[in-house]
This record gives sequence, structure tokens and C-alpha cells, in this order.
Amino acid sequence: MAPPIACVGSGLVGRSWAIVFARAGYRVQIWDSVSSALDKTLPALCATLNELEKAGAIASASEIAGRITLADSLADAIADSCHVQESVSERLEIKRALFAEMDDIAPARATLGSSTSAIPGSAYMTGLAGSRRCLVVHPVNPPHLIPLVELCPTQETDAETVDRVAALMREVGQKPIILAREIEGFALNRLQWALLCEAMHLIGEGYCTPQDIDAVMTHGLARRWAHLGPLAVGHLNAATGFQGYFDGLGEAIGRVRATLRTDYIPSTETVAKTHAAMDATMPVSDLPRYQAKRDRAILALDRLLRDPG
Amino acid sequence: MAPPIACVGSGLVGRSWAIVFARAGYRVQIWDSVSSALDKTLPALCATLNELEKAGAIASASEIAGRITLADSLADAIADSCHVQESVSERLEIKRALFAEMDDIAPARATLGSSTSAIPGSAYMTGLAGSRRCLVVHPVNPPHLIPLVELCPTQETDAETVDRVAALMREVGQKPIILAREIEGFALNRLQWALLCEAMHLIGEGYCTPQDIDAVMTHGLARRWAHLGPLAVGHLNAATGFQGYFDGLGEAIGRVRATLRTDYIPSTETVAKTHAAMDATMPVSDLPRYQAKRDRAILALDRLLRDPG
Repeated sequence: MAPPIACVGSGLVGRSWAIVFARAGYRVQIWDSVSSALDKTLPALCATLNELEKAGAIASASEIAGRITLADSLADAIADSCHVQESVSERLEIKRALFAEMDDIAPARATLGSSTSAIPGSAYMTGLAGSRRCLVVHPVNPPHLIPLVELCPTQETDAETVDRVAALMREVGQKPIILAREIEGFALNRLQWALLCEAMHLIGEGYCTPQDIDAVMTHGLARRWAHLGPLAVGHLNAATGFQGYFDGLGEAIGRVRATLRTDYIPSTETVAKTHAAMDATMPVSDLPRYQAKRDRAILALDRLLRDPG
Repeated sequence: MAPPIACVGSGLVGRSWAIVFARAGYRVQIWDSVSSALDKTLPALCATLNELEKAGAIASASEIAGRITLADSLADAIADSCHVQESVSERLEIKRALFAEMDDIAPARATLGSSTSAIPGSAYMTGLAGSRRCLVVHPVNPPHLIPLVELCPTQETDAETVDRVAALMREVGQKPIILAREIEGFALNRLQWALLCEAMHLIGEGYCTPQDIDAVMTHGLARRWAHLGPLAVGHLNAATGFQGYFDGLGEAIGRVRATLRTDYIPSTETVAKTHAAMDATMPVSDLPRYQAKRDRAILALDRLLRDPG
């Protein structure tokens, strides 16, 4: 029997990771420093698994749930594991203490991944006896619905660790990319926020409304991006491929590039106006319903991408 | 019988507009200053319409083709039209002369739209007797597959023109957004190129590969963006909506914002390397096949979005 995987932290991200690993056949041991959080873990997991079974995304909720157990202590969770996935709150001191402790306890062959999206791994996973086996394994929320994972080594992570975790991710159905070195926001949030910051500029300076921004995406850009990345889109947009696209639009891109305002800091009013526009169609009081709808839409798109027909 | 719509320019964009209008029941009159281009127009249109019929996106290719005619002159094309959609090459002098001529000939009630993506309308549609009825009507390519349209008035366009063209766009099934005033790249290309410029930075500085960028989109960001714009995604990512999302991530967004390099000018080598990466999976010699595959994927997504099940 393969060694289990430990999920440390039982919030939304930790539970979703547990589903990813258990769905692929791994035994999963979850631990949380807050025991009251742990009490809610299995009911929350079962609710999500039942939704997935109902949507036809998994065959048997109970079979997957049967592979997930709660651990009484951090040591119990990770002592025999092959990989530890940390998903605790984004506070540097907590992560630093936790990685030191996990590195002490974890078996020599175990790799230690952190789900952080906002803290460079080098701030808390270097200088340890086992820093070579530590790296950032940043998921998109929730990872059981969205396969991309960003692997980001520190300067002390060794190549074998990166390779092994990439292989594990592929084995459990995720799509890893590997960053060569650290950068704020890794790749996904940099791309996402470059677009969001320019969007806030257009709203803040009154060029268009928040609803217009979302329309540009759902009725425009994402019609291609759902199937092809931005580079592939360019490649198919010119008879001579990406080179022709970039050369042909070079001047226009240059003029836009010179006027982009991704450094734009939106005013309190602009953020409030954007919130109000979203709240008008998706009231905060009713968000769980829209979140469930979003998750069903993501599953439907996943089916489409696997079998475009 | 409703007056016809004139499509001036018979390239990829002009032909696609002809399909949009004819599909909605309008008679369409196409004209091109290059008569040899016009010779290829009907066969190319019929090929596209047959593909659409085969994919189940339209009921009858021949019925729609029957509404499209070639005009012998610019005057014939637009003399009795209610709207003129210009889609000629992106050269200022050509557009300037054409708009002056069209404004002379077009019926008083006709609106004149330009498909330009790269030239501000004010550079060629102001100072005319009828400049109040001229505006940019920027489609996403090809408009018969992608519904977003950006309407951008000049300082001389009147509000009634914007309203009438927006209503026409909705009537024919497009999704118009209205920009309050001119800006380089309008909204769509600004958002697209903000992301692309940061992507070229990440590739150029060796953080990740071109394939990684596209993976971030297709396996990550676009899983949500296909259904929800970037603002709606943020709104659903926090229990208190967009305000909570922006406040909660404010510091992280701020750190990324400070390091974004959307002003990055990629080297010749970086562009060539990106082209080579795309060419390795989608060889330029075989692009038409991948373009056809892209178009089928866009149609399949459109069906999904209309009926998420």
C-alpha cells in the first residue's frame, strides 16, 4: 500500500487538496491546529463529495471519503506520509514555525509543499535541515475543480524534489507548471492581477463600467482563452503564427503598452462602486448559491474540454 | 422590408460581419475596392456558412447566403442602407478618405461604424458633415463566433447614434459595451495586452516557458473566466464579496502591482522563442486545421454557456 499524504490545515484549500489526493486513490490524513475546525472537516468534505457524485464528476463519494481520516496530532498526520501539503493561514510566523516542526517529524523521503499564494517560500522554508525537500505548491481554488498548480522552488530546493512533486501532481490529475525561481504572485496571480489592475484603471477613470469589464471577458476574451492560452491565440491569429502576430500588431501593442496603468491604485470609491455593481446581480446575502453555480459551471467546462465532441 | 446593411471591405472581418447581419434576417450588401477580393467573397462566405450549418449553429446556409449580395460600387452598397460597417485595412489615409465618401453618399438616417482595432476614430471620422453618426464598432474576430463588440464614440458622435448602434448590435445577437471616451486599444485589447505584456516579461526573464503561460490560462484562469469576469470571480472568492476580496488581498495585490512589468519590451529572441514553442505543437504549415478546431471549440463553448445544463 502506498504511503499516505498529509494535509495540514483543514480549511477550504486543505479539504479540497484532500479530495484531489483521495480521488486519485491515496490515503489522506488531515490535521488542523484548531480542533474545532477539525470537527467540521468530515461533514464539509462529505457535502462536497456528495455534490461531485451528483454532478457525475466522481463515481462514489463514500469510497473517497473512506480514504480520508482525521489525525490527532501533527506527528500522527505526517509521520508515515510521502508528501505533506500545508494549507494554513497566510501568516509568515505560523508557516515558519510549522515548516520547522514538519521538517523535524516528516520521514526523510517525504516532500513538503506549501499552498501559499502570497508569501515567498524562501521566507519560511530555507535554513532547515530538509529545506531541499520544501517548495511552494500553489493551487488554484479549489484544486479539486481547477487543475493548474504552480511549483516554485526556493534557492535551497533540490531538482529531485521539484521533479517528484511534479510527478505526484500529474499522477493525481493536476497540471503543474514549474517556475525557475521566486517572483511575487508566481505566474497566475501576476497575469490575473495585471489584467485586474488595468480593469480598475478603466473603471476608476470612467472609461467603462464594472459590468463592461466582465462582459469583455465572458463574451469576448474567454471565448478563446477557455481553449487556448494567450500565446496560442496570437499564433492562430496570423497566417505566419506568433511571429507574424507580434510583428503585425507590434506598433498597436506598443502604443497600448505605453499607456497601460497596471500601477493604478483604485480609490475607495472605485472599489466600492465595483462591489456595488457585483452585488446588484449577485447579492452577498446569496453568495453560496452563486458559488455553487460557479462550481457546476466549472465542472461542465471541464467535461467539455475533455471531450469537445 | 427593413433597409439593408452595407459591409465595406470583404476580408475576414467584413465577411464575418455579413454573416452576423444576414443570420439575423438583414439583407447585406458587400463591397470591396479590390474587385479581385470581391470575387472570392461569395465562395468564402458559403464555405463558412456550410461549416456553421454542419456544426448546427445555423439552420440553413443557403437561406443566409441568399440575403448577401455583392455591390458593384460603394454607392450601390450603401445608398439605401440603415447601417454601414467598414472593415478595410488599418491604414489611416484609406479610412479617412472612405469615411468622407461614405458620409456623402449614405442616407441621412444611416449610422457608420468602423471595425478598427488600432486607430482612434477621431483621427478619421471627425470634421465631417455627418460625424455625429460615426463611431467605432470594434468586433472580436470573428464576430459571427464571438459576440462582444466595443462601441467607441468620438467627441462628435451623438448619443442617439450610440444608442441606435447598441440596439442594432443587440438585435443581431452581439453583446455591445459602450466606452465613455476614446482610449488606445479600447477595453478588450488593453486587458488582453496587459496580460500578454506581463507574460512576455515572465518568459523573457526566464521565470517560465511559453507553454507554462498558456497552461496557466487553459488549466487555471480561464476555468473561471469562461463563466465569470474577473470582477465576478473576485466577488465570489470572499464571503463578503468584491470589497472583502480586494481588502483581503490588497497587500498581496499591492506587492505584485509594484513589480508588474507590463512596460516590458520583449527581445527579438524572446518573441522567436515564443513562436518556436507554439510552432512545435501547432506548426504554421498546418494552421488552418488548428484554426478550424479553434472555431469548433468556440461554438461548443457557446452552446455550453447558453445551456449549462
